[in-house]
Amino acid sequence: MEPTTPVFHQFEPQFLHDFTVRVFVQYGVPEADAVLAADVLAYSDLHGIDSHGVARLKTYSDLLAAGRINPKPKPKVVRERKATATFDGDNGLGLVIGPKALEIAMQKATECGTGQVTVCNTNHFGAAGYYPVKALERDQIAWAMTNSSKGVAPLWGAEKMLGTNPIAMAFPGLKEPPVVVDFATSTVSYGKVEIASRKGQQIPTGWAIDKAGMDTHEPLDMINGGALLPLGSTREAGGHKGYCLATLVDMLTAVLSGANWGPFAPPFAINVEASPGSVGKGIGHYFGAWDIDAFRDVNEFKQQVDHWVQTFRKTRPQPGKEHILIPGDPERIAFASRSKEGIPLIEAVVQDLEGVAKKTGVAFG
Amino acid sequence: MEPTTPVFHQFEPQFLHDFTVRVFVQYGVPEADAVLAADVLAYSDLHGIDSHGVARLKTYSDLLAAGRINPKPKPKVVRERKATATFDGDNGLGLVIGPKALEIAMQKATECGTGQVTVCNTNHFGAAGYYPVKALERDQIAWAMTNSSKGVAPLWGAEKMLGTNPIAMAFPGLKEPPVVVDFATSTVSYGKVEIASRKGQQIPTGWAIDKAGMDTHEPLDMINGGALLPLGSTREAGGHKGYCLATLVDMLTAVLSGANWGPFAPPFAINVEASPGSVGKGIGHYFGAWDIDAFRDVNEFKQQVDHWVQTFRKTRPQPGKEHILIPGDPERIAFASRSKEGIPLIEAVVQDLEGVAKKTGVAFG
Repeated sequence: MEPTTPVFHQFEPQFLHDFTVRVFVQYGVPEADAVLAADVLAYSDLHGIDSHGVARLKTYSDLLAAGRINPKPKPKVVRERKATATFDGDNGLGLVIGPKALEIAMQKATECGTGQVTVCNTNHFGAAGYYPVKALERDQIAWAMTNSSKGVAPLWGAEKMLGTNPIAMAFPGLKEPPVVVDFATSTVSYGKVEIASRKGQQIPTGWAIDKAGMDTHEPLDMINGGALLPLGSTREAGGHKGYCLATLVDMLTAVLSGANWGPFAPPFAINVEASPGSVGKGIGHYFGAWDIDAFRDVNEFKQQVDHWVQTFRKTRPQPGKEHILIPGDPERIAFASRSKEGIPLIEAVVQDLEGVAKKTGVAFG
Repeated sequence: MEPTTPVFHQFEPQFLHDFTVRVFVQYGVPEADAVLAADVLAYSDLHGIDSHGVARLKTYSDLLAAGRINPKPKPKVVRERKATATFDGDNGLGLVIGPKALEIAMQKATECGTGQVTVCNTNHFGAAGYYPVKALERDQIAWAMTNSSKGVAPLWGAEKMLGTNPIAMAFPGLKEPPVVVDFATSTVSYGKVEIASRKGQQIPTGWAIDKAGMDTHEPLDMINGGALLPLGSTREAGGHKGYCLATLVDMLTAVLSGANWGPFAPPFAINVEASPGSVGKGIGHYFGAWDIDAFRDVNEFKQQVDHWVQTFRKTRPQPGKEHILIPGDPERIAFASRSKEGIPLIEAVVQDLEGVAKKTGVAFG
């Protein structure tokens, strides 16, 4: 599904990280926070999640320039119990508020076995997978979710009401790499429809509907007032389950925290119409951490994950497939090449970054 | 998808509940535990989840008669922190161990804001939705999951490796009914394929593969050595996401608790080949509870859920649809009629119950 003749430019990960830090600092983000934010974006670029890395730096830059994100937030816990917290992000970068909320969840997990933290008044937090992978350093399982601006129709609906509301969770092995689950609860991401549009290709049945609510194979029908479909697509194929899953994420991230839920989630873009009113503060995230030792001997757990991975790798494949994948394999494959050969950015992203450089006065290259 | 000319018999809910209690007691299950188990089955029958109610009593009966389920378990917490526990079900009925594990999670949530409990050495626990609905009585959000015997192929796999691994969670409204999410992580349940088989109907693309791993429209191809597909069905339509979700459930219920995971989960049937070896004890469940007041004022939360439900009910429907559904609506519609008119059981289930009556000496009718 990649463009047929893309022009890629290779960049050193460290170069992109440094540029990102300097751009955020230029907007008044404190140095330590800027480094945190750059770490989150670098995770995506290194792991092949191109839609959530420096490709988004222009949007963060636009929103900071327009005063729609607070560069110097004073986030605080507004409600708390031993193992839980509600965290108000003071309209900061999600790339900064997210790691701080995860830290609270992990500290509580160390103390109580688990920590569960809901977050309001925040913004786009990068790739959900960054967070549970971070928690592995402490022998903790973690999950991360976020709601996002509307793009997905509920089953049988003809209009956007929910975000792509991703969920991520990771489970460490001992000798085997971790099992990392990270996915949006829609059938596909908006980005995949955009790519098809750029290539002049049709999209498969089940991805999207047009503005009248009818199935469509034309990417532009979705982009111009249509909607993505929830995972499962149709009632027959389980579309109600994807809708349920997106609902679960919306409830935990936004309704529980006091953020904007459903169609009220504010857009992550400067030139998109604002949401119809407000029912809370910013968008919402949710983080939970589980200290493995609270449930089972850590080594024993990791050995079982190894055994799980080895058992599943032996699954007899479908005709025409060499083998199945373990959740996390695609990101590991990308990391293996990108950590050595650098990050490939398409021409359009490079131009965006040059624009950011010009606007901020931060040198690029 | 119901049989075209089914013969239904109507039963009073209380009559079926009493019969269930007496059958379990006859097998040596203590009275209080038998009532708990009957409550869980009655939830399914009253809410239209026909595959998980008294229709399963024959299987529980067979497994108890064969000594494969312990009627008088002494379940215990084997590892614990303030907000977490690992619970060993001593091979009891899941219908009894499940509610007890949920109780631990709810008590910890009252104390710490959340309680998270993983369970090993247990058996089939009925409909997952029973548990979070129970927690609503305490103004708590809860979730329940279980792994189950293999029936589902991982994406690109040609054989069964995972159970249908359901997830359920519920969120209370104030004036509106609760939002109740309850779904298996496969495209469809085994039961739906069985129904198509009985009717001599074909099944849609995306539901199942045959024993060679090829797509099939013949229900018997799935039943005879084939497999169900994970939610999303194909790579293009997001089948990797359903596989990830089933993996997440397998990890939290079984790998974390010390139960049998993946293809090792023991079968819930007397005449099915046993799993290939063992990597733990019984199957696994997972329960979590969240005390709403720990995160946000309870009334404020419920008002937001009301607003969410009212907003989503106004979603413009697709052409040909009257309106969208709110998660939990199908079960509420069933409850409205069944609580008044009784539980309709098909002839085959009535015959099963008559067989159970004969075997146990407990009068039926």
